[in-house]
Amino acid sequence: MKKMDYQNVKGTQDYLPNAEVVRRDIRRTLEDVFIQYGCKPLETPILNYTELLASKYGGGAAILEEMYTLTDRGGRELALRYDLTIPFAKVVAMNPSLKMPFKRYEMGKVFRDGPIKTGRYREFTQCDVDIVGIDTQIAEAELMVMALDAFRKLDVNVTIQYNNRKLLSGMLVLFGTEYDKINHVILILDKIEKVGLEAVVSELNNQGLSNSAITLIKQFLTDDGNVNLSYFESFAEQSEEVRKGLIELKELESYLKLLSVETKCEFNPFLARGLEIYTGIVYEIFLTDRSIKSSIGSGGRYDNAIGGLIGTNEHFSTVGISFGLDVIYTAIGSSKGELKENSNIDYYIIPLNTTKESLLLANDLRNKGYKVEYEMSNKKLGKALEKANKERIRNVIIIGENEVKDNQFKVKDMFSGEEKTEFFPFN
Amino acid sequence: MKKMDYQNVKGTQDYLPNAEVVRRDIRRTLEDVFIQYGCKPLETPILNYTELLASKYGGGAAILEEMYTLTDRGGRELALRYDLTIPFAKVVAMNPSLKMPFKRYEMGKVFRDGPIKTGRYREFTQCDVDIVGIDTQIAEAELMVMALDAFRKLDVNVTIQYNNRKLLSGMLVLFGTEYDKINHVILILDKIEKVGLEAVVSELNNQGLSNSAITLIKQFLTDDGNVNLSYFESFAEQSEEVRKGLIELKELESYLKLLSVETKCEFNPFLARGLEIYTGIVYEIFLTDRSIKSSIGSGGRYDNAIGGLIGTNEHFSTVGISFGLDVIYTAIGSSKGELKENSNIDYYIIPLNTTKESLLLANDLRNKGYKVEYEMSNKKLGKALEKANKERIRNVIIIGENEVKDNQFKVKDMFSGEEKTEFFPFN
Repeated sequence: MKKMDYQNVKGTQDYLPNAEVVRRDIRRTLEDVFIQYGCKPLETPILNYTELLASKYGGGAAILEEMYTLTDRGGRELALRYDLTIPFAKVVAMNPSLKMPFKRYEMGKVFRDGPIKTGRYREFTQCDVDIVGIDTQIAEAELMVMALDAFRKLDVNVTIQYNNRKLLSGMLVLFGTEYDKINHVILILDKIEKVGLEAVVSELNNQGLSNSAITLIKQFLTDDGNVNLSYFESFAEQSEEVRKGLIELKELESYLKLLSVETKCEFNPFLARGLEIYTGIVYEIFLTDRSIKSSIGSGGRYDNAIGGLIGTNEHFSTVGISFGLDVIYTAIGSSKGELKENSNIDYYIIPLNTTKESLLLANDLRNKGYKVEYEMSNKKLGKALEKANKERIRNVIIIGENEVKDNQFKVKDMFSGEEKTEFFPFN
Repeated sequence: MKKMDYQNVKGTQDYLPNAEVVRRDIRRTLEDVFIQYGCKPLETPILNYTELLASKYGGGAAILEEMYTLTDRGGRELALRYDLTIPFAKVVAMNPSLKMPFKRYEMGKVFRDGPIKTGRYREFTQCDVDIVGIDTQIAEAELMVMALDAFRKLDVNVTIQYNNRKLLSGMLVLFGTEYDKINHVILILDKIEKVGLEAVVSELNNQGLSNSAITLIKQFLTDDGNVNLSYFESFAEQSEEVRKGLIELKELESYLKLLSVETKCEFNPFLARGLEIYTGIVYEIFLTDRSIKSSIGSGGRYDNAIGGLIGTNEHFSTVGISFGLDVIYTAIGSSKGELKENSNIDYYIIPLNTTKESLLLANDLRNKGYKVEYEMSNKKLGKALEKANKERIRNVIIIGENEVKDNQFKVKDMFSGEEKTEFFPFN
């Protein structure tokens, strides 16, 4: 049998216990915070009809190229979901009796057959919250405050950047960009941090933008010292979009200030967010120290996607936020240095020819709610203690024949070296 | 756009909040029990090389026919995992430095493109624990006791049936079955509850078993009043396998008795377990009232699979147990009647033109650890109270302008009708 037989597929990986313990904590912390904010759980399938996922209200052309597709035995054209947003929109579409506002979370695997970079996998886990049915910016504020709360509980220092798509597209119109090119131009601007100004300008040239438009966009992009909310005020009279965007941003900021998180949030007039579907406020979460360049969570308002997907073009006010489990795991790993093995076992019982009493004690302690590791192998005592040290198990109970005879045993604290004598709880 | 666009694929389904809350509880209860028994978490990819999953130490021919396969953009032949056992064996094979015994759990989606029956889906969730490195029956006992503990916590009344593959195959040899047919005959016997004795006998005929063998097997299968452990004692001298199987069963039973769970466990000499890989003790968990016919969890010892997969044929003592989340969910749903919406929200805050104070109060209660639903929509009071009743939220706080003026609000207990006045925690 060749080695290939037990390799992992490129872009996928196993998480061994040391890593998975951390990931479990992240998952549970996020879920507990979601619950605290009144979000309800939803679970949707990974397998979907290709036609659904390929909807133009989906992830956009770039993501569709990365979709894993397959044909099942019944000849159905299927695809693996590449995000949790389309499945959410599908559930809203399929269940017209859902009471609004509907606030759900889902945590699950998504798949993208794309290029692999550091921290980018082909199979990864997203943790999403979306709210449908709220048209005021209180929804965005709730999700941003919730995100800050979650990262505080995860002990990760973050800053949220926010913007409003209406500002950007309103300005682009004023600069002379043609309507049908605006979404595409926004996607180009979104890459500026990665590729730099010159590359952005040359891409704008390729799109056939007029010279005057390009000059104005360039000026806008390089004027970051002056581009703040009041900069936009002067354009509000010329553009209804800019005006609306400003109102939404101010409403959002009033909530952020009210809840005393305004120092954790900053307006970034150039923030675009990669996806086409956004229609209002957008935000991205970054490590405050920027030790990871890319965002570790993001989202925004997308009011047209569900209606588009249903085919009625009805308006569904929708705001979402998505946390990347894998990048958060990377962030926590890199901020805490190498992840140490750290068992959360309360007692480690090592039997020395005393299976019966040791098993009964393990059973008794477990019934009392403790986490107990019972050494089932015939490890020598030295090896067992080595394991306790390596896994940083604090309390060890060695049960030999003397302990059984005397009807008492010692609980050894491996950190302090202290010992405490206890009686067997049976006999 | 056609309706098809937002249908679910046959054999998959969404779990809406009422269902998913129950599933989340099951998942967390199982995980907490696994942790209590010293199991470590592992996470393996859903996407695997087809060659790995198609190994003859995998799920067997029947499962391979149900495997979803696809080709990625790099031309790799991939498949979606159909269980969590092969991925576990792969991890052990790929990580020779893993310390033994290695006791891991994994909960995750698996996929089978098979026929759909009640409670059988094409995409479903398994929750598995496997132990590698223990050759005594203490491993089986630990998993069985753990399973009983888990179902006690889930408030589901179960019975575990157990057997030993060595008994079955030893007896089949004594009955004159040829060696290379034994595994296949066991798979046929496994179906007796479903298809009945006559169908089993006719399938045995098709396999070309001798008449005398079939007569003896038939006699064995219909003699269930007499077929207990002492029945097998009389064959132990003629068959090393029967002798070994008996020793293992007796060791197992001594642990079950020691831990006082013997009344929850019963020896079933005809229990076979569908998969070929098992080599010793096997067990299946059933609802005690049998309101669901199929097992809701199962497992056993499979000492040859990992070595076979690695290609060294090394011996790896391995015991596993698998819980089906979906069938457990069905069991809990059917035992508790219709699942009622039951929010676990501590406070539901309804603002009446008091966004500022209401938001601050929600934020304050959340910071204190409470689960708070803040009504973001402009629902009328009546509609909001309807929602509280429907979702069985106990504590409702209505904040109108008078409350703000008086700097106090009432917490209304919707179950008892009582009201408690409290002061705003700010100002």
